[in-house]
Amino acid sequence: MIPSDLIAKKRDGESLSKKEIYWFINSFLNATISESQMASLLMTIFYRGMNSEEISDLVNVMIESGSKLNFPGSENFIADKHSTGGIGDKTSLILAPILGALGLKIPMIAGRALAFTGGTIDKLESIPGFRSAQTIKNLKRLIIKNNCAIVSQSNEICPADQKIYKLRDITATIPSLPLITSSIMSKKLSEGIEALVLDIKVGNGAFIKTLKEGKILAKLMRETGNRFNLKTDFIFSSMDQPLGRYAGLACEVHESMKTLSGDGPKDLIKLTLKLGSKLLIQSGLVANFDEAINLQKAVIQNGNALEKFRTMIKAQGGDLDSFRKLNQPKYTSYILAESDGNLTSFNTEKIGWGLVEMGCGYKYKNTKLDYSSGIEFMKKIGDDITKGETVYRIFNSNKEKLKVASNLLEKTFKISNKIPAFKLIIHEY
Amino acid sequence: MIPSDLIAKKRDGESLSKKEIYWFINSFLNATISESQMASLLMTIFYRGMNSEEISDLVNVMIESGSKLNFPGSENFIADKHSTGGIGDKTSLILAPILGALGLKIPMIAGRALAFTGGTIDKLESIPGFRSAQTIKNLKRLIIKNNCAIVSQSNEICPADQKIYKLRDITATIPSLPLITSSIMSKKLSEGIEALVLDIKVGNGAFIKTLKEGKILAKLMRETGNRFNLKTDFIFSSMDQPLGRYAGLACEVHESMKTLSGDGPKDLIKLTLKLGSKLLIQSGLVANFDEAINLQKAVIQNGNALEKFRTMIKAQGGDLDSFRKLNQPKYTSYILAESDGNLTSFNTEKIGWGLVEMGCGYKYKNTKLDYSSGIEFMKKIGDDITKGETVYRIFNSNKEKLKVASNLLEKTFKISNKIPAFKLIIHEY
Repeated sequence: MIPSDLIAKKRDGESLSKKEIYWFINSFLNATISESQMASLLMTIFYRGMNSEEISDLVNVMIESGSKLNFPGSENFIADKHSTGGIGDKTSLILAPILGALGLKIPMIAGRALAFTGGTIDKLESIPGFRSAQTIKNLKRLIIKNNCAIVSQSNEICPADQKIYKLRDITATIPSLPLITSSIMSKKLSEGIEALVLDIKVGNGAFIKTLKEGKILAKLMRETGNRFNLKTDFIFSSMDQPLGRYAGLACEVHESMKTLSGDGPKDLIKLTLKLGSKLLIQSGLVANFDEAINLQKAVIQNGNALEKFRTMIKAQGGDLDSFRKLNQPKYTSYILAESDGNLTSFNTEKIGWGLVEMGCGYKYKNTKLDYSSGIEFMKKIGDDITKGETVYRIFNSNKEKLKVASNLLEKTFKISNKIPAFKLIIHEY
Repeated sequence: MIPSDLIAKKRDGESLSKKEIYWFINSFLNATISESQMASLLMTIFYRGMNSEEISDLVNVMIESGSKLNFPGSENFIADKHSTGGIGDKTSLILAPILGALGLKIPMIAGRALAFTGGTIDKLESIPGFRSAQTIKNLKRLIIKNNCAIVSQSNEICPADQKIYKLRDITATIPSLPLITSSIMSKKLSEGIEALVLDIKVGNGAFIKTLKEGKILAKLMRETGNRFNLKTDFIFSSMDQPLGRYAGLACEVHESMKTLSGDGPKDLIKLTLKLGSKLLIQSGLVANFDEAINLQKAVIQNGNALEKFRTMIKAQGGDLDSFRKLNQPKYTSYILAESDGNLTSFNTEKIGWGLVEMGCGYKYKNTKLDYSSGIEFMKKIGDDITKGETVYRIFNSNKEKLKVASNLLEKTFKISNKIPAFKLIIHEY
């Protein structure tokens, strides 16, 4: 086979066979196909798409490039949740221990901040001592012992996906739905799970701007799941405003713990329990949505969920006692309302970039994160506002960056006399 | 500027500014932009195209990456001809000396065999001693002395184009009309010419399969020419059959010399003089087509054209006396007609691949060419054929390869009772 012939085949609208996909990806891994040829194929896929057979072939070769978790003989239901990324989205931190406390096994491989969106792993690493990097062997041990763990992607899991993702990042081929599908699904399938719930973020603070596009992605993911015998559920949730009251690093861990102790913001609780209910129903532990909600609320109320969170963090080396004292922001600034009315909309992506400026994400590849930094959203869409009231409380440990971010954040919300419409959960699939 | 942002800009349908194009190409040349990023941009250009401003910015940065010929104070008209490539197309070998004999200056930078099409430089290199590689300084000297020279692209001319072309070759981004345009025009403009005639080959033995596509290419080239004050003429000629009676390497040089001595096949003469007439009219030497044809015929009849050819070859080190004795094929095979009728069509691309099998082109990057090999076309479209008559005489110096090629060539023509329509010159622009 000749690499450029396969690229040309795809370029001219034909599908690639399993053999061709395997050969191309494996040749790329052993460097007989160059990065330029891979980049060219990726850009062609951006334009031409891939059918579900091609996607599952790609998923397969990615999985087979690494190792796969397995829990032979386990009686617990093994599942995971994944989000396509947003601002203030700390549902993973809350959901993993809730479901772990209920007896599900959640071997969650999570990501870092990407562009203007936050990363679960970065948030967890604000806890001193926390080790996100775990070998597969360790992850398996953690899951068998505690039911849940949240780890970063290791070189053992889907190395082909890692090498391709790195290339996509510099060649403007991230936003391809078949490539997004294969990247997510290969990692999730490598976890050895039986069910997956996907939180597809839609809105002005998400990569996916419209429900229509989200539905295409969900369809590709469901088809892929079906081919691998993986049950999938999809929640399309709004990213037209940040989720919860905080966005940042350590502050999101604090908010998660508060939520696990029963004192969380409504939207965050609603979405988290909704996602959890999908997996609980799939597991067969409950018969319906109401039962699923009640079960989750019970482990929050009796303290088991928070206890599971503490156990999980401790098992990965995290020191929550020191954490309470650490990461105190040195500087704070406030953005005030300049008029009366209702908060009608946010420019959520811009808020995300403001957070990146403060070191909650990677402005450069080697950005040093500022764990103390974040934003408290004192008002959300639909809230009454009086002129002079605080809309954002912004905090971090670098005066210069606080100023830059504050300037950026100033015009990221609108106040008017209209009554805004906001729906947290847009669609289910 | 961030490379992936510029790729994304183009990917999403926006145009790139002059500054952005210069920065991207120059960064690629100094290797701060990777081959993978360049490949990704090239594939995006394949899908999105480029407007004429972008093309001329790309042409400019390519020209400026190297040196440019110039003939200050020259009273001779400086011009060139370029073909998009075909089978049996030896018009350059004939036209350069004809026009040189008529006082035009033709600093022709020609190419090698590409895919299934033949290369002028490869044909010339069948002449012992012939040096196709010439420095710019030497090329200029040759032109000042003899009016014409045919040389290969040196590293001094458009190194950016060379580096990009090499990448296009392995990333399936050759057939992009704006990229073809910028590659050809940058090289031709670097020759310091005043006028250019383009022979756009259209048909089943050309890269361009339809007149429609050819017209788009011609329009891009004309627009680019206009921006650089270069007069352009376009002949769209059929590549639905090989041009002339021979296709191969040394045999095409022989056929060219025969044609220069007044004994060439009709189609070859017709197309060559047609192309030449465009440049003669542009030069102002003649007032119309008939005058141009007569002038060219005169230098063939009086021997000046053939003499100019000999001078040109000798000036570049070629030894035509030895050439006559060398390159004698050792093996010959014949493809015979299996029925009576008219020859109605060729599969010209397949004929080209047959020639590649025999070493007239590059099956692999390091293929050693067999200068003795080629095909004599005893019949052309429209010719009467009797069962058992020879259609192709195939010859080379490697028995194995002759067999492979002969098998490949067997079904590359059709005989029927229909009267075929064939038009050599399809369109002018």
